[in-house]
Amino acid sequence: MSVFDELLAANRAYAEGFGKGDLPAPPARHLAVVACMDARILPLEVFGLAPGDAHVLRNAGGRVTDDVLRSLLVSTHVLGVRAIAVVHHTECGMVRNSDAELRDATGTDIEFHAIADPDAALRDDVERVRAAPLPEGTEVHGLRYDVRTGLLERLL
Amino acid sequence: MSVFDELLAANRAYAEGFGKGDLPAPPARHLAVVACMDARILPLEVFGLAPGDAHVLRNAGGRVTDDVLRSLLVSTHVLGVRAIAVVHHTECGMVRNSDAELRDATGTDIEFHAIADPDAALRDDVERVRAAPLPEGTEVHGLRYDVRTGLLERLL
Repeated sequence: MSVFDELLAANRAYAEGFGKGDLPAPPARHLAVVACMDARILPLEVFGLAPGDAHVLRNAGGRVTDDVLRSLLVSTHVLGVRAIAVVHHTECGMVRNSDAELRDATGTDIEFHAIADPDAALRDDVERVRAAPLPEGTEVHGLRYDVRTGLLERLL
Repeated sequence: MSVFDELLAANRAYAEGFGKGDLPAPPARHLAVVACMDARILPLEVFGLAPGDAHVLRNAGGRVTDDVLRSLLVSTHVLGVRAIAVVHHTECGMVRNSDAELRDATGTDIEFHAIADPDAALRDDVERVRAAPLPEGTEVHGLRYDVRTGLLERLL
């Protein structure tokens, strides 16, 4: 059985016990969380959130790229989100590797948005969201998640 | 108490019961899931996955943008991922709205990657991943998730 056959069998079991078929699309807590793709991070659980509560945006590093801004524009203007948490984390692969190392490792010449200075990167990302044309009054915070302890620290 | 104070209080409770501090960074199942930011989707649970099993990449629509390719290059070349699931879903806000409507709603002129034809969009996104310079043998599939039933359908 391939890994995908296993995953689809697990999905059938998930669907049998599914009780969330009537959740509406707009996030109940009017919240969007931007976080890293890192396998150790559970963005809803970390904030004590339930299914349906928040949009979750994830990429390498939890960086605020053009694609994250595209998604946040939809989140806020179309789906009622009014608070945004940008979450970076400890022991991130985007801190351990530089852009030059990532270009070497992947054989490409794109910009990887590796993080040389974690505090500066979080500040830059929060500022990028705050500078975007989001609805007035949208709250934006910057936090760091510790993958060893499960604790969030609000820095911005 | 602001919403963020509540969330941080919930996080302290989460950290008290935290038992995942020794998970390694590389995903245990060598898997990355690309999915929509939609609040109703739980990418790990849907596939029966555990914390630490998979990278999770999310944006508006689960579209394979340049930012998703950036992240997948890191996933595969640096962190051992060898299987990628691109997951679109039913009742997606990126299907219900066109790019023109999203530009109107947000007052911007960016490309939103709205989805006119769901089957074609999934095929395009899977093809974009397959055409990327990923390690040889990387498996790429395209699935649709039904937000009413919890079921995944493998289309590609």
